Amino acid sequence: MVFEMTRKIWVLDTTLRDGEQVPGAKLNLYEKLEIAKQLKKLGVDIIEAGFPASSVGDFNAVKEVATKIGNTDDIMITGLARAVKADIDAVYNSVKYAKRPLIHIVLGTSDIHVEKKFRKSKEQILQIGVEAVKYAKSLLPEVQYSTEDASRSDFEYLWATIEAVVKAGATMINVPDTVGYADPAEFGELIYKLNERLKNLNDKVLLSVHCHNDLGMATANTLAAVKNGADKIECTINGIGERAGNAALEEVVMAMKTRPKVYQGYTKINTKEIMNTSRLVSSLMGLDVQVNKAITGSNAFAHSSGIHQDGLLKSRDAYEIINPKDIGLEDMELVLTARSGRHAVKNALEKLGLNQLNEQQFEEIFAAFLELADAKKEVYNHDLYVIIEKYFAKHDSNVIHYSDNFYELMDLQVISNSIFPSASVKIKKGKQVLKSSAVGTGPIDALYSAIAEISQLDIKLLEYNISSVSRGKEALGKVKIQVEYNGEKYTAKATDTDIMKASALAFINAINSIVVDHMLPANQMIM
Amino acid sequence: MVFEMTRKIWVLDTTLRDGEQVPGAKLNLYEKLEIAKQLKKLGVDIIEAGFPASSVGDFNAVKEVATKIGNTDDIMITGLARAVKADIDAVYNSVKYAKRPLIHIVLGTSDIHVEKKFRKSKEQILQIGVEAVKYAKSLLPEVQYSTEDASRSDFEYLWATIEAVVKAGATMINVPDTVGYADPAEFGELIYKLNERLKNLNDKVLLSVHCHNDLGMATANTLAAVKNGADKIECTINGIGERAGNAALEEVVMAMKTRPKVYQGYTKINTKEIMNTSRLVSSLMGLDVQVNKAITGSNAFAHSSGIHQDGLLKSRDAYEIINPKDIGLEDMELVLTARSGRHAVKNALEKLGLNQLNEQQFEEIFAAFLELADAKKEVYNHDLYVIIEKYFAKHDSNVIHYSDNFYELMDLQVISNSIFPSASVKIKKGKQVLKSSAVGTGPIDALYSAIAEISQLDIKLLEYNISSVSRGKEALGKVKIQVEYNGEKYTAKATDTDIMKASALAFINAINSIVVDHMLPANQMIM
Repeated sequence: MVFEMTRKIWVLDTTLRDGEQVPGAKLNLYEKLEIAKQLKKLGVDIIEAGFPASSVGDFNAVKEVATKIGNTDDIMITGLARAVKADIDAVYNSVKYAKRPLIHIVLGTSDIHVEKKFRKSKEQILQIGVEAVKYAKSLLPEVQYSTEDASRSDFEYLWATIEAVVKAGATMINVPDTVGYADPAEFGELIYKLNERLKNLNDKVLLSVHCHNDLGMATANTLAAVKNGADKIECTINGIGERAGNAALEEVVMAMKTRPKVYQGYTKINTKEIMNTSRLVSSLMGLDVQVNKAITGSNAFAHSSGIHQDGLLKSRDAYEIINPKDIGLEDMELVLTARSGRHAVKNALEKLGLNQLNEQQFEEIFAAFLELADAKKEVYNHDLYVIIEKYFAKHDSNVIHYSDNFYELMDLQVISNSIFPSASVKIKKGKQVLKSSAVGTGPIDALYSAIAEISQLDIKLLEYNISSVSRGKEALGKVKIQVEYNGEKYTAKATDTDIMKASALAFINAINSIVVDHMLPANQMIM
Repeated sequence: MVFEMTRKIWVLDTTLRDGEQVPGAKLNLYEKLEIAKQLKKLGVDIIEAGFPASSVGDFNAVKEVATKIGNTDDIMITGLARAVKADIDAVYNSVKYAKRPLIHIVLGTSDIHVEKKFRKSKEQILQIGVEAVKYAKSLLPEVQYSTEDASRSDFEYLWATIEAVVKAGATMINVPDTVGYADPAEFGELIYKLNERLKNLNDKVLLSVHCHNDLGMATANTLAAVKNGADKIECTINGIGERAGNAALEEVVMAMKTRPKVYQGYTKINTKEIMNTSRLVSSLMGLDVQVNKAITGSNAFAHSSGIHQDGLLKSRDAYEIINPKDIGLEDMELVLTARSGRHAVKNALEKLGLNQLNEQQFEEIFAAFLELADAKKEVYNHDLYVIIEKYFAKHDSNVIHYSDNFYELMDLQVISNSIFPSASVKIKKGKQVLKSSAVGTGPIDALYSAIAEISQLDIKLLEYNISSVSRGKEALGKVKIQVEYNGEKYTAKATDTDIMKASALAFINAINSIVVDHMLPANQMIM
């Protein structure tokens, strides 16, 4: 499909600069390079790799990204500088190793910044900006100028600054909503007015926006700017960054893709790499993505309400505007909970091969399901097997005991220390009681080795995710894992007040899912 | 301040209905009541407490909320019903115990919903809606009708539906952007047009919106609706809910409060209860809030960039548009990281009483700080003490060994099992080596008891938060805790590949912060 009417929107990713400002998210050189490599694969136009003047570590990281990732024509590498010679030198000396280097200068234009922060006159600040651009321009052809706190600046002074720095040689003008103060209608209007004047002055200069999320509107403000003439957007993966973060790349890009008529812009982002990038950034920075984060949250494509599940089973577009595959996910997820209706439960049973239930049988099984779901947070396929088996056992059918294949945790002991982390488990399988213990590189590794030994399955742990939020002693540990078996990926979860027990239960849920997948169809249960 | 020009905007909170649809977030009766109580304290106008027809557990929970929380005139209680008699009966029979009960009926108006999901004609669906409202109205005076998928509906059919159900007695019309598809400009226009017709038809009927966040614009769409005539907004705490969740109450409310001229609406939310509510919902549902979540993320008011810290120290409004105290937080946070500049470090040293450093002394200490910060993710005050002490020791001053008061973890062993979770620790304090062990209700409780015993401080653990995101075995556990000592609250963090060690380190960081607070000013170090 060719977008006749649409413009290309440049994407600058600042995960490695603004994103890395998140306290505790500091990356080492190797990690920065790995993220930069993935951003290139994602297809961003520009990587802002750091703030080279801030520390030696940051300088070296930007230099490495410029050298190793900026070595091709399809990507620009930049670093941030204040409007002072030493900062500009630091950026130049680190980004110059890229094929297409860019110097990014930032200086405030709002009264608050000019008068209270810099304690200089507006004319003086404007002149400092012009001199900085001239100096940067003497080093490199590509220079971006950011008018910090633009959304709270006097419009005519903001324009005078932009006009002066463009005449001094700036090739990109970036308009930040530094404190996340703007409203989309207001910000769109600002960009519209600036764009009109800028295109008259020099239509080669790119107009860019950089929106913060303090009031939750970074994405909407960025998109309002695109609708009103912005050529370039600045964003981060998962929306991380200073304070409440920046516009999330995945949200802005997917909105443009989902509503092409509204935004009339396209990016060269390979959306199928969005989830891979999100997971890499989250894991290397140690920053969890909220489950209901738009696009990249683990729940963004999971449907749990009965009304919605019923609708989706009839027509996907009833509740789905993005195909999960477009961002590199496998598929939407229908999670069985107490809110799931008959249609969803029937669908899950049918998927297990159980399509011969009559209405009375189904209603009784559905009642048992609701009872379990009210008590338990989520219901797995192996739980459905147990429900069905109980039902048929009660009605004296000639039942095959499938549940003899499932594992159930009886007891565990985990020892965490610096020398020999080890774990012992006692697990039931049907009527058998099995025990095992193992030493590991850490307590979880020991625990999972002990359980894996009992299952005799060759399982690889891909992802381990624990979170526990609590007040006082009643912490509820939630563990979510992804494992691989026989080339297939399985996700499983568990919750318990003891984080070790929650970890064990999640692994056993995963093993039971593998067992279900390798069993004969359940309809053979009904004799 | 009296808002002459502004309108009161009603707030319906659906954390207990749409929010509870998050897989794994299911609450028990006691937890639901506790959240409902807090929502009342927060000042919401309406609590949607559940979907009574979905299960017995949900029915009972709605009934309890209606009875115990809905017993005063200042709050309405509602529950969701599809446009079928059984659902409406279930809502009626559970909400009728409230002083001001409300029945909420939902039925689709988009072609996708009408034709693909219901497989009925538009006229049939409209008639079903009218009959449902008439029946509900025969039970209770207050009835809300939601036109599901309104933002993707044919406008004239949408209006015809609204007109018919208002004539049938609906007292509130809710316009959902069910799949989070709308753009603020577009959604604002839709609300403007509907509001104009609705006010002509019956100006007593409230116009409401319910926005989902699939493209990250729920907050912006909700606010666009407020600007264009909506009288009521539906939202959830922390923006949780089906898929990517709903508009976050805290974002919409704080945007209205921060930009009164733009939105010209006010709510009766007591914003000082926002953080308490956010933490309660997060902890009871076990749903972590992303650190950079607007308003309620733990990082939303933390400033780490050197440029920003410098600006804030000169003038808070340079980078702060909301006073953290307005949402019930203590104050903004300046976090010392590798990106912190001289100004922030000098400020931290001065706060410790170290204000007599000459320039050369400061520069050497700042260099040592940067080196530590490049290696470590965050720098604590007790780390600053150690840096300063090392500096003065090197320069042969007559130094008081303050760091003899700090604790340092040497080794630990934690045993998790179902009978006697226990922990042993070896900790250094100055030149002393101290050992202790304890049994607890769980492994973390045992570990913290053992450490607390060594410190001989009466510390109370208020919050414990662990998250670990990783691929494969290199999980990095991040622990954040809040403790209370002597009436003061202390927050501390730590990161390690071993989650038990990270937990111990965080607790020791908290203890060292307490120690720093109770030491003599550091300026007495310089002789």
